[in-house]
Amino acid sequence: MTVPAPLTGVVPPVCTPLTPEGEVDVPSLLRLVDHLLDGGVSGLFVLGSSSEAAYLTDRQRRVVAEAVTGHVGKEVPVLAGAIDMTTPRVLDHVRSVTEAGADAVVVTAPFYARTHPAEIARHYRLTAERSPVPVVAYDLPASVHSKLPAELVLELAAEGTLAGLKDSSGDEAGFRSVVTGARAHPGITGFSVLTGSELLVDAALAMGADGAVPGLANVDPHGYVRLYELCRAGDWTAARAAQERLCALFGMVRAGDPARMGGGSAALGAFKAALHLRGVIACPVTAEPQVPLSPEEVERVGESLAAAGLL
Amino acid sequence: MTVPAPLTGVVPPVCTPLTPEGEVDVPSLLRLVDHLLDGGVSGLFVLGSSSEAAYLTDRQRRVVAEAVTGHVGKEVPVLAGAIDMTTPRVLDHVRSVTEAGADAVVVTAPFYARTHPAEIARHYRLTAERSPVPVVAYDLPASVHSKLPAELVLELAAEGTLAGLKDSSGDEAGFRSVVTGARAHPGITGFSVLTGSELLVDAALAMGADGAVPGLANVDPHGYVRLYELCRAGDWTAARAAQERLCALFGMVRAGDPARMGGGSAALGAFKAALHLRGVIACPVTAEPQVPLSPEEVERVGESLAAAGLL
Amino acid sequence: MTVPAPLTGVVPPVCTPLTPEGEVDVPSLLRLVDHLLDGGVSGLFVLGSSSEAAYLTDRQRRVVAEAVTGHVGKEVPVLAGAIDMTTPRVLDHVRSVTEAGADAVVVTAPFYARTHPAEIARHYRLTAERSPVPVVAYDLPASVHSKLPAELVLELAAEGTLAGLKDSSGDEAGFRSVVTGARAHPGITGFSVLTGSELLVDAALAMGADGAVPGLANVDPHGYVRLYELCRAGDWTAARAAQERLCALFGMVRAGDPARMGGGSAALGAFKAALHLRGVIACPVTAEPQVPLSPEEVERVGESLAAAGLL
Amino acid sequence: MTVPAPLTGVVPPVCTPLTPEGEVDVPSLLRLVDHLLDGGVSGLFVLGSSSEAAYLTDRQRRVVAEAVTGHVGKEVPVLAGAIDMTTPRVLDHVRSVTEAGADAVVVTAPFYARTHPAEIARHYRLTAERSPVPVVAYDLPASVHSKLPAELVLELAAEGTLAGLKDSSGDEAGFRSVVTGARAHPGITGFSVLTGSELLVDAALAMGADGAVPGLANVDPHGYVRLYELCRAGDWTAARAAQERLCALFGMVRAGDPARMGGGSAALGAFKAALHLRGVIACPVTAEPQVPLSPEEVERVGESLAAAGLL
Repeated sequence: MTVPAPLTGVVPPVCTPLTPEGEVDVPSLLRLVDHLLDGGVSGLFVLGSSSEAAYLTDRQRRVVAEAVTGHVGKEVPVLAGAIDMTTPRVLDHVRSVTEAGADAVVVTAPFYARTHPAEIARHYRLTAERSPVPVVAYDLPASVHSKLPAELVLELAAEGTLAGLKDSSGDEAGFRSVVTGARAHPGITGFSVLTGSELLVDAALAMGADGAVPGLANVDPHGYVRLYELCRAGDWTAARAAQERLCALFGMVRAGDPARMGGGSAALGAFKAALHLRGVIACPVTAEPQVPLSPEEVERVGESLAAAGLL
Repeated sequence: MTVPAPLTGVVPPVCTPLTPEGEVDVPSLLRLVDHLLDGGVSGLFVLGSSSEAAYLTDRQRRVVAEAVTGHVGKEVPVLAGAIDMTTPRVLDHVRSVTEAGADAVVVTAPFYARTHPAEIARHYRLTAERSPVPVVAYDLPASVHSKLPAELVLELAAEGTLAGLKDSSGDEAGFRSVVTGARAHPGITGFSVLTGSELLVDAALAMGADGAVPGLANVDPHGYVRLYELCRAGDWTAARAAQERLCALFGMVRAGDPARMGGGSAALGAFKAALHLRGVIACPVTAEPQVPLSPEEVERVGESLAAAGLL
Repeated sequence: MTVPAPLTGVVPPVCTPLTPEGEVDVPSLLRLVDHLLDGGVSGLFVLGSSSEAAYLTDRQRRVVAEAVTGHVGKEVPVLAGAIDMTTPRVLDHVRSVTEAGADAVVVTAPFYARTHPAEIARHYRLTAERSPVPVVAYDLPASVHSKLPAELVLELAAEGTLAGLKDSSGDEAGFRSVVTGARAHPGITGFSVLTGSELLVDAALAMGADGAVPGLANVDPHGYVRLYELCRAGDWTAARAAQERLCALFGMVRAGDPARMGGGSAALGAFKAALHLRGVIACPVTAEPQVPLSPEEVERVGESLAAAGLL
Repeated sequence: MTVPAPLTGVVPPVCTPLTPEGEVDVPSLLRLVDHLLDGGVSGLFVLGSSSEAAYLTDRQRRVVAEAVTGHVGKEVPVLAGAIDMTTPRVLDHVRSVTEAGADAVVVTAPFYARTHPAEIARHYRLTAERSPVPVVAYDLPASVHSKLPAELVLELAAEGTLAGLKDSSGDEAGFRSVVTGARAHPGITGFSVLTGSELLVDAALAMGADGAVPGLANVDPHGYVRLYELCRAGDWTAARAAQERLCALFGMVRAGDPARMGGGSAALGAFKAALHLRGVIACPVTAEPQVPLSPEEVERVGESLAAAGLL
C-alpha cells in the first residue's frame, strides 16, 4: 500500500519474538501484530532497533518482513528497517524487505565506517534512487554515533530524497527545527516527522510532530493510541496524565541490573518479559549476546505492568 | 593452514580493489596480494576496515575471501574479518569466510547495539565455540565505540577463547598491558598481540608485540617488513628512521580535504590512489558513499610516494 | 531576599557587558538589568554561562554580583553562579557572591577533575552545608562533561541539599523525570525545576517545570515573559506560536561562521550584538579568547532582530 | 632561573600534601621536594593535575608556589600550572605564580567554555604575550575535553608562543608528530617535548622526546630517573625492564574501587597513600570532594610498593 504522506498516529517498532533456540517465533510475532492492530496503531515498523534488527541474520530479517506484511495485508502500512553499515549493504536489505512487501524503508546514516555529512547525504541519495519505496531517515546517535543535522534532513526532504524522519536522537530542540522547518518550507509536503521517544510523545505532538514510534507501544499500544488521540483533541491536561502513566510504565527498563547488562539488554528484555507476562508472546528470550533478565528482574517488570493496570 | 602461535611479522589488512562499477576487481586484488607477498609479509588480513569490509556486500566479501585464499594456497595464513553488529550476524560471516578457506577470523565487539563488558565476553565465547578456526579480537573503538578492556582480553586469552588481538585502539598503554600481561600469565601461550598502528610499529615491537597490521603496508610492504626486521635485530636507531620514513609516507591520508570528506574516505582514497599510481591496481575507486579524491588530491598522494622513493 | 520556593517565571542568565578593554561595563550592566526588569522577569541569574562567568576574573565576578544586587534591591531574587572546578574553589565563590548579596548560588558538578556520582553528591552536600543561601544545581554537560542523574538530583532535593535545578542538559526526558519525581516525592516541597533551554520553554512548562532561564531572554525578555504567561494560562496554541517566534529569533546564534569560531563565541557574540543593536549596552565585545563577529555577521544578527520586530 | 631549552629528564608533577583539615601541609611538601631532588629529577612541576591544582583555592596555590620555589632556590627549574577556564583567569594565575618565583607556566586550552582551534591559538598567544616566563602547553583531553592538534602546537612553537609541550593526551601517534615535526622545522629550536605518561616513557624517549612528567615519579623518582638514564644510554632492553617495573607499580591506581570513586580519587589517593607509607608525607588525605581510599585499599597500595621494593 502507499504510505500516507504524512504518516500519522502510533507506529510501533515491532519486537521480534524468538524461540528458546533463537529462531523467529512467527506465531508469537503475528499475535503481537494483532495485539498492536487491536490497539489502534496506524502503521508498523519492523526490523528497527526494538525489533533487535541488529541481532537478526539476513534470513531471519526476511522471515520477519514476509510474515508481517503477509499478515497485515493492506490494513496498515509496514515500514521496514534496512539497517546496515553503508550504502551497498543497505541496498541489499532494501531489496530484500521490498521484495517481502514493505511499504517504506527506514535507513540510518552510515555507521562503523567513519563518516561525514557529505557522505551521509550521498548515502541517502543513492539509497532513495534505488529504492522502489519511500525512504525514512532514522536518527539514532546512540547506535550510529553521528547525528543527522536538521538542515540536512530538510534539504533531503525538499529534494524528495526523504519521505520522513524517525527521530530517536534525544535532541528535542533539533527535532523541533525539523518539524517547523518542514512546515515552513514551500518545497516540502507530506513529510512525516515521527518521534522515537517513549517519554515525550505529548511534547512532540504539541510541537507539531505527525506521529510516534515508541518501543513501549509494543507493551501498551492502547495507551499510546489514547495519548495520541488526546493530543490531537487538544486536551493537553489529560494527555500529560496519559503520558506520565506511560513514563511510569517505562520504568520497567530499569529492572535489569546495570552492573550485569547493558541498557539494550535491559530495555528489550523488559519489553519482551512484559509481552510474555501479558500473554502475547510465547517466550521472552532476547538474541545473543544480550544478557537475560533474572526471575527477580522479571518480577519487577510485572510490578510495572500491574501498577499501570496491564496485568 | 594452521596460524602460527603467535603470529609474527607484518600482516597487512588487504585493500579491496574495485571496478569503476563498484564490483570486486579480482585481478587487481590478486596483483595486490602478489605485491604484498613479494614484500615479505607473513600473513594477510582480508575483510578488515582497510579492506572496506563495511562497504562490501555479503556476496562481495565471499568473492574476496575465496579469491585470496585460493591464490595464496598455504604460503601464508589468511585471516578474515567477520565484521558485523552482533553474534548471530557475525556467525554467518564466520561460516562464509571459513568455507572460503580462511585460517582465522577477526571479530570486533558488538556495535550499533548498545553493549556491556559482560555481553562482549559472551559474544566472543559464543563465536569461538562455533568457529572452526581461531578467533582474533579486533579492538577498534573509532568504529565500534567501545574499548576492549585489557583485563577482558587477557581473561579470554587465558581460557582459550581468543587466539590474538589486533589493536587499533590508539591506546598504547592499554596495549602494553596486554603484551606484558599475556607474557606474564602462566595460562597464556602462543597468543598473538598485533598492533594496527601505522605510526608506532617500532614502539609496539619494542614493548614486546608480535607483529603489525598496518593499512599503509598495502602501499609499501617492503618498508614495513624492513622496519619489522630492524626491530627484531634490535637496531632501534635504524628502526626509528625506517618508522619515521613511513610516518612521512602516511601523511598521504591528509591529502583529502576534511571539509569535503570524512577521515575514512581520505585514508582509503589515498591508499588506493597510491596503489593505482604504483601500478598495482587498475582503478582507485572506493565504495559508496565515500567521497573520491580530486585530481589535485591524488597529485598530493603522488608527492608523498615520490618523497618516499616509491614512484 | 528569600528566594520563592519554588521560583517561577523567567529568570534570565544576565549577560555581562564589557568595555573595549575587557572590563565590566557597569552602567551597561545596570541598563541591561532594567531592561530585564521592565520585561517582567521574576529573578536574575548572574555569573552563569551566558554571563561569561568562565571568562571573568574573580575580581570582575565580584563587581558584577555587587552591582546587580545593589541595583535590584529586594525587587527580585538574584541567583549567582559559583562556577569552578571543585568544592574548595566553589566555596570561595559562594563566599564572595553571598557577601555581595546573592540570594542563592548556582553550582555545577565538579569539572576538569575526573569525577563520579559519589563525588558529585559529596560536592553538593559540602557546598550546601557551608552556603548561607540555597544551592541550585546547574546541569550543563556541554561544559561540565558529566550529566546529573535525575535520581541523584531527587535524592539531594529530598534531603534538603538542593533547592532547585537549572537544566541545560538537552535531555528533556531526564528533565521530565525530575519534574514528575519532585512532585511525586512526599519529602520534596518548593523545589524549583527550571529549564535552561531557549527553544523548549513551552514543552518544559507543559511538563510541569516551574520556570525558564533562557539566555536569549537577555535580548527579548518581554517575549519570554509573554510565552511564560501564555503557558500558565493554558493557551498552548498561542504559546507555541510565541515559542516558534523565539526559536526563529534564536537563529541569530548561527550568524557566526563555525569555520572561524566556536559555538560559544557565536552565541554570546550574537546576544551581545543584539543588545548593542537594541541600544541596551554600549559595546558588544566578548571576553578573550572568544572570536568576535564580523560586521557582516552582526548584520545577520540585526536581520534576526528585525524579523522578530525588535529593531 | 632560566629553564633549559629544551628541558630534559624527569620533571615530576609534584603532589600537594594536605593536613587532615585540607590545608597545604608545607613541611610535608618540602620533604616531598627533597625526596624528588634526591631522586635526581631535573625540574619540578607544581600545580598540575597530580598536584590537585583543580582542588586548591587561589590562596593555597600561592602557598604551594612560594614554598617550593623558595625551597629549591636555583637548584632546578620550577614550572607552575596556571590552570583555569579561559585567558583572563589564566592570566591571574600566571601573575600569581610568577610573582611567587615560577620559572615557566603550564597552560591548558580553554575548558568549560566551548572552544575552537582558533580560540585556542588566541588563548596561547595572549597568555604568552603577557607572561614574563615561558609558556608550556598542557595537552590533557581527559580534563579539558579538547585535543591540541599537533599542527597547532608546531605553529605556536615556531612563532615563539610556546616553549614546550606536556602531553598527557594518550595519543602517542600525535605526540610523535610533534617530536619529529619540532626537530624537522627550521624555525623551532629548544622546544621541550615532554610526555605525561607513566607507562610509555621508554617509548616516548625512543621516539625522541626530551623528558617525562609522570605523576608516579612522586612515589619513585629514583626509578624514573634510572629509566631516563637507561634510555639516554641506548640500553633499551634494560629500559624496558625498568619501565615494566614502573608499570607494575602503577597498578596501585586500581586499588580504589571504581564503584565507589572516580579515577582521579583512586590515582591521587594511591600516590598519596604510597608517599605516606614511604614516610615522605604526614597525611595521605586528598582534597574534597574526592573519596578517600579505605584501609583495605591502602593495604593494596602497600602491596604494590612492596612488590617494587619500595617498602
